[in-house]
Amino acid sequence: MAVYTHLTAAEIEGFLADYDVGELRSVKGIAEGVSNSNWLVETTQGRFILTMFEARTEAADLPFFLSLLDHLSAKDQPVPRTIHTHTGLQMRDVRGKPAALIEFLPGISIDEPEEPHAFEVGVALANLHLAAQDFPRLRKSSLSIPICVDMLHSRAGQFDAIDQQLAQILPDCGDHIRDILPTDLPQGTIHADLFPDNVLFVDGAVTGLIDFYFAYTGAFAFDLAVLHAAWSFALCDNTFRPDIGSALMAGYESRRALEERERPALPILAQAACLRFVATRVEDWFATPEDGLVRRKDPMQFAERLAFYAQSGDAPFQ
Amino acid sequence: MAVYTHLTAAEIEGFLADYDVGELRSVKGIAEGVSNSNWLVETTQGRFILTMFEARTEAADLPFFLSLLDHLSAKDQPVPRTIHTHTGLQMRDVRGKPAALIEFLPGISIDEPEEPHAFEVGVALANLHLAAQDFPRLRKSSLSIPICVDMLHSRAGQFDAIDQQLAQILPDCGDHIRDILPTDLPQGTIHADLFPDNVLFVDGAVTGLIDFYFAYTGAFAFDLAVLHAAWSFALCDNTFRPDIGSALMAGYESRRALEERERPALPILAQAACLRFVATRVEDWFATPEDGLVRRKDPMQFAERLAFYAQSGDAPFQ
Repeated sequence: MAVYTHLTAAEIEGFLADYDVGELRSVKGIAEGVSNSNWLVETTQGRFILTMFEARTEAADLPFFLSLLDHLSAKDQPVPRTIHTHTGLQMRDVRGKPAALIEFLPGISIDEPEEPHAFEVGVALANLHLAAQDFPRLRKSSLSIPICVDMLHSRAGQFDAIDQQLAQILPDCGDHIRDILPTDLPQGTIHADLFPDNVLFVDGAVTGLIDFYFAYTGAFAFDLAVLHAAWSFALCDNTFRPDIGSALMAGYESRRALEERERPALPILAQAACLRFVATRVEDWFATPEDGLVRRKDPMQFAERLAFYAQSGDAPFQ
Repeated sequence: MAVYTHLTAAEIEGFLADYDVGELRSVKGIAEGVSNSNWLVETTQGRFILTMFEARTEAADLPFFLSLLDHLSAKDQPVPRTIHTHTGLQMRDVRGKPAALIEFLPGISIDEPEEPHAFEVGVALANLHLAAQDFPRLRKSSLSIPICVDMLHSRAGQFDAIDQQLAQILPDCGDHIRDILPTDLPQGTIHADLFPDNVLFVDGAVTGLIDFYFAYTGAFAFDLAVLHAAWSFALCDNTFRPDIGSALMAGYESRRALEERERPALPILAQAACLRFVATRVEDWFATPEDGLVRRKDPMQFAERLAFYAQSGDAPFQ
């Protein structure tokens, strides 16, 4: 959701005093991010996003995320720079919670991508993988597939409260997917959550890749599978859009050719990617009251995509 | 709350196509407004607020609010202009709901005002009253004191669920306040909701008065009483700050001297102002789930201020 914590302008001015960013001119709490609070901050020197880290993001992981942004922006990737304090710190506490100031990037998210958008985001993801290859820090996923399978097992008795199809699609809560998932694929730093709302475009060009707070050290091909599962389905009826899927693949491979062992792994990786989003959405379903104020994301959206990938072999990745 | 409705970038681009404001460059849903959804929209030509009107704001009243902004900004008041479409319209529908594009104003809200802020906002309110004197449209309040008293009567049985003090402060739900409220005070267009978060400052100067969606044709002195009740109490312990109260009054009177019959009405008007916010907060208390995601405003904050005004006579208005 957004803006869990209320900060006064005075608190935000106090925060900014540690940075060389000029005087505060405007601040708006923004409705973005699922596990942190965000403000769009304008100063006499520019615009920034102030992110305060709430639940789910572990404070110990923040140096990984913020250093990754620094590493990637130093390599001219379209990611927001971390702004450092006068004394060189990447983050500081506000109200006892860690917070960071990052660059604001212009651009708009495309909800219904066309082929050229898909090609460009494929290129951008491959560029990210290449640029992060010498990033020295490591992070384990806190939402690995075994963890997601366990999350689903703990909720299996309540699946029918969401949709009776859910137990039919995931009768074993993903045990089989976990067990056959390849573990020897080329690895590096991956975004792991590159949904359309985390990609900004201006005039058809990617100007921003944002929200790296699920990034970890994992299989490049899994990141491509997340991208495929997140982008290639029509919003209106959740059907597969082969043109988008192909454009994502073509864009990615224009910069980084898949290795021989990666391509055959894509069907099972795509199922695993869907499983990961089903798991957190099932969790959120029961944690979030149905009051109309907070939009719950439908677990069935990715359950249906999982079923599609399970039935389709390698056809979606041609 | 904020952003009840999710709009895609394509929908926002479609909306902007009716305006001469350039190309969309960025859009962020913002966490402002209690009864509408707001987006901060950046185009190649500037920044704007797109407001979609949800519950509580009646579509029939929107021409009043939007024309008032046009009237006041034409008189150089620090209010956002309404941007008109190519064909001169002030609003249009998006997803079947009325929406308007208004100017973005820089500035920050001061949560803990100092005397100079209070003086300046007093000046600004008086300027608003003077500038709106020839505004030709009329609007009745949908939250008049008789309506608020009725709202409280309908919830009286549940007061103890909020706080046992509430029934002690308002044993008659405000019947007495309603009955003795003067009805012959000088009238005009009033803001009626000029809380600190609806006033923007840059370097100590008022740069923005925003959120006119409770404005109506009413007593100027009631608007001053709202200002007094909203600004003059310490956030930490809700005690009266006489320095702030005096600065508000001095600022207001520096531009518009109170008439003889207005001054003695202030103590009862201030109680009525508090009553109005107690009434809507009591309503919202029972309408809003206590889930930690939505901040419920505490009805007791204004119940305590009401009790203070009831006991203090005209001392707070010296």
